[in-house]
Amino acid sequence: MNDKLGSWERTHRCGDLTAEQIGEHVCVMGWAQRRRDHGGLIFIDLRDREGVIQLALDPDRDLASHQKAEQVRSEFVLAARGKVSPRPEGTVNPKMKTGEVEIEITELLILNRSETPPFMLDEFTEVAENIRLKYRYLDLRRPALQKNMLMRHLVAKTVRNYFDQQGFIEVETPVLTKSTPEGARDYLVPSRVNTGRFYALPQSPQLFKQLLMVSGFDRYFQIVKCFRDEDLRADRQPEFTQIDCEMSFINRGQVMDIMEGMVAKVFKAALGIDLTLPMPRLSYAEALDRFGVDNPDLRFGMELIDITEQVAGSQFKVFSSVAAEGGLVKALNVKEGATFSRKELDDLTDFTKIYGAKGMAWVKVTADGWQSPIAKFFTADELSALNEKMGAEVGDLLLFMADTPAIANEALGRLRGHLGQKLGLARKDDFQFTWVTDFPLLEWDDEQHRHLAVHHPFTAPLEEDIPLLDTDPTQARAQAYDLVLNGSEIGGGSIRIHDQSVQSRMFDLLGIGAEEAQEKFGFLLDALTFGAPPHGGIAFGLDRLMMILTGADSIRDVIAFPKTQKATCLLSDAPNEVDDKQLQELGIRLRTKQK
Amino acid sequence: MNDKLGSWERTHRCGDLTAEQIGEHVCVMGWAQRRRDHGGLIFIDLRDREGVIQLALDPDRDLASHQKAEQVRSEFVLAARGKVSPRPEGTVNPKMKTGEVEIEITELLILNRSETPPFMLDEFTEVAENIRLKYRYLDLRRPALQKNMLMRHLVAKTVRNYFDQQGFIEVETPVLTKSTPEGARDYLVPSRVNTGRFYALPQSPQLFKQLLMVSGFDRYFQIVKCFRDEDLRADRQPEFTQIDCEMSFINRGQVMDIMEGMVAKVFKAALGIDLTLPMPRLSYAEALDRFGVDNPDLRFGMELIDITEQVAGSQFKVFSSVAAEGGLVKALNVKEGATFSRKELDDLTDFTKIYGAKGMAWVKVTADGWQSPIAKFFTADELSALNEKMGAEVGDLLLFMADTPAIANEALGRLRGHLGQKLGLARKDDFQFTWVTDFPLLEWDDEQHRHLAVHHPFTAPLEEDIPLLDTDPTQARAQAYDLVLNGSEIGGGSIRIHDQSVQSRMFDLLGIGAEEAQEKFGFLLDALTFGAPPHGGIAFGLDRLMMILTGADSIRDVIAFPKTQKATCLLSDAPNEVDDKQLQELGIRLRTKQK
Repeated sequence: MNDKLGSWERTHRCGDLTAEQIGEHVCVMGWAQRRRDHGGLIFIDLRDREGVIQLALDPDRDLASHQKAEQVRSEFVLAARGKVSPRPEGTVNPKMKTGEVEIEITELLILNRSETPPFMLDEFTEVAENIRLKYRYLDLRRPALQKNMLMRHLVAKTVRNYFDQQGFIEVETPVLTKSTPEGARDYLVPSRVNTGRFYALPQSPQLFKQLLMVSGFDRYFQIVKCFRDEDLRADRQPEFTQIDCEMSFINRGQVMDIMEGMVAKVFKAALGIDLTLPMPRLSYAEALDRFGVDNPDLRFGMELIDITEQVAGSQFKVFSSVAAEGGLVKALNVKEGATFSRKELDDLTDFTKIYGAKGMAWVKVTADGWQSPIAKFFTADELSALNEKMGAEVGDLLLFMADTPAIANEALGRLRGHLGQKLGLARKDDFQFTWVTDFPLLEWDDEQHRHLAVHHPFTAPLEEDIPLLDTDPTQARAQAYDLVLNGSEIGGGSIRIHDQSVQSRMFDLLGIGAEEAQEKFGFLLDALTFGAPPHGGIAFGLDRLMMILTGADSIRDVIAFPKTQKATCLLSDAPNEVDDKQLQELGIRLRTKQK
Repeated sequence: MNDKLGSWERTHRCGDLTAEQIGEHVCVMGWAQRRRDHGGLIFIDLRDREGVIQLALDPDRDLASHQKAEQVRSEFVLAARGKVSPRPEGTVNPKMKTGEVEIEITELLILNRSETPPFMLDEFTEVAENIRLKYRYLDLRRPALQKNMLMRHLVAKTVRNYFDQQGFIEVETPVLTKSTPEGARDYLVPSRVNTGRFYALPQSPQLFKQLLMVSGFDRYFQIVKCFRDEDLRADRQPEFTQIDCEMSFINRGQVMDIMEGMVAKVFKAALGIDLTLPMPRLSYAEALDRFGVDNPDLRFGMELIDITEQVAGSQFKVFSSVAAEGGLVKALNVKEGATFSRKELDDLTDFTKIYGAKGMAWVKVTADGWQSPIAKFFTADELSALNEKMGAEVGDLLLFMADTPAIANEALGRLRGHLGQKLGLARKDDFQFTWVTDFPLLEWDDEQHRHLAVHHPFTAPLEEDIPLLDTDPTQARAQAYDLVLNGSEIGGGSIRIHDQSVQSRMFDLLGIGAEEAQEKFGFLLDALTFGAPPHGGIAFGLDRLMMILTGADSIRDVIAFPKTQKATCLLSDAPNEVDDKQLQELGIRLRTKQK
């Protein structure tokens, strides 16, 4: 039989005991991490959320406790009373916060026993992930995951306090809502009362937060679960958490200022780091020009260099013909990269092919000039101009890409990111932010023969670009902004359209007819006619932010009960089969049963 | 065309301006609530979240603003700059916070126009609820609903800060999870990737929070959406919000102490009220004896008086036969209730029939003794004993119920609550709490021929009642506790079973076989074998708590976007029909389509 807790009350958490408590009589409770028998004494490392404390059991002090301690095995649940004492000389453990002290136990309870766990909780043990997920409650006992969850709580708390101080109020929006058009695939929930109809789980509270602005709530935020039924990638989960905000009577500069303040509070609270504000702000065009991508990693330089002009007249047809056809020739200077092997250069070339590149040229800069298959195509003057433009020095590796602007930028931009990782330029403890603004509002979709919204259909164009909606819509820029951290987009938003006529024009451009618009977004369109204020907002992905803050390699390490890449929960076995009676009530049946 | 916000920045919210700001140049933004033209001047009441301020537009000060103001109608969105000034003598409005001042406008922007709203936002206007719900974004502009949402934010913030200070961490549990056995009807979500299988939306995070305790998180809380697919009553919604908590290494007294602290913080923050702690604690048996119900309203006395003993020997067979058969005869003394009309007494009798009562006897106490059809059955000694037992005085109304203990208690208990409302004894601004403890653990279900868990299958029995599980299970009391406020259960919880053998015994009693238990709760049973600590918790219904705090009559007045009693959203038209393509992907079809 287990001992009963009765009226015992814990006085301290294990990890909180230090030399300050020496002489105090304390009561601690937790899990036996390790037991050692030494010279007639028994030592137990007792662990709780805050840390580990050593219990010393001496049969001369209390025989009953010592006898109980003899039964203790890993992960037994104990309560212990005793006096905090300095550890005997030579046994102090300076690596532990509690390493100077131990508790001389006078009373011990075994509150529960434990089978031998399927894996050791030592944090360095490598365990197959499916086992970790099946026994998630044990995996979560490991200090690394405890720390992640504690930090997640701290971050959510910091975010909430900040927004509250800034006059935001948290409002809960519905989980059982309506299918979101223009988005990813929805999770559907059959309605029993309204048979044949379905709720959808929200991909974001977008429409509701805009309505809250129409309602005059002025500043809204919510830390909220959102849902997308997409095939999962490594850093995606079917349900994910957003820090969702919306503000009225503001322009985008004000939104960015306030959000920077939030991010700074989070980094200070979670990591003790003081961020430099304001954060850099890059236009989309500049981001593409300098970094090839709209989510640049600013932890290192190695910017893309446009040499189209320099090579337009060269004898190297691969470059000059691309330049003549309106393409781009761009280059990277990998400082001191001339040591790359042929194999490594081939791997880099293969990497760029993922992004559609047809090939990549390389040059090693030596004391004797360019060592490269393409060196012979350039005159001395051209080489000199290129070296100057690229800041080439002996020992550098130059990489060239000639292609359409889209492919040249993306392939070389991704290669830059890849090299930043490979060369160790992208350090996990370095945090470099940038806003990217002025995204295109619309892109033309050849397949559907209509425009698509780059952000979403409610994003406002730049005031000065509104006339372009009639003349050259894809040139219109959006009042949108993404916050990029270390090459990951951690948040994105926009100023919304508050003018009903502009919103209708947008739906036209998106090929959404008046009737369809009314059916899908009617309540928003109606709302815009009843005094909608200028407003805008943003949403941050909390899971990805937590990955960056904790340095976790997997999104599953920052979520208490995550799902696999097949969207299953190995712990609870969800999703599972249900009784046909339940389906009958919902008015649905399985298609497979029809065969 | 609307004016553009440009770089205008708001300096104050409308409701924040008082005589303190006189002389300051300010910028405010909001909605035109009312416009008056008076003596060549135009006055506009501008409203935002914080209140209303009067704008004064004088053509001699700025003609352009005055001309714009002439176009302004209700709910137009304005921005205005000007100087805060005292209102002219005789126009001060002492009822308004801002009533001493107005803004002498020097610049006005019309940021957006408004159609005539379908209803006036004046808070005293009675509007049909279906119209309010369809135009929810307008309804939410009304000060009463703004106040409710602001208070809801304040309450959530207060709860979070309190729990954080008490060492709780907020952990998010899954929304896409597994069907909860033993509960209400689940909402199901078909899985596309795992065709033929379904997630369920959580009715509560019960199992996950227990697992978090097994994981050593020690103290968990979450403000979390839960879901039940039940036919809706007036105060129910398909999705509702719980304040959910769980703690390790505690007994139930400690849980109640900590939760009282939370409730006290909430009442202080929301209403400025200092609650008296500790709160009363009643056993279930005492609650039934004194109040007839397990959720007694303690705002007034009028306790149930057990007169079974006094009437057991009387000539009134209706009473004495019930007493002889083990039933109860109980009474209420309605002080000064002798003025009730015959019609009123008949209505009260009808009320008790809802709860299964077969009849009710009444007595008016007059200076001449009992005025009642039953007076003649009692001797003078019996009358005297009854009067003494009931504290009867001239002018009182005595009501009697004789029935099985269950019916006598419930019918008279509900009648007591009903009379408390009717007689105005239950004041909305009076807040009386009580804990109710020692609930039965199990009840026998004649239909299913098995025991049912009164709370849920994980509730621990009182230590001293564990032997009763083998001898007389329905006599075993649970380590459960409900917090009752003004006759409503606002929270309920229990100490959980942490011993795997006790949990198995419970499943036996509930008629859940080993295999079924393993299939449904296997992960919890497994978790109990790997070192589960003693633990317990509670969940509060935030929506109902908000109803009480705000004095709202409907749960829909404390939820931003509520659903109707048919579980529909009149604003977004959810749930709605979906494309057959979506159903195909999910591997389901509608049954109705099969006809």
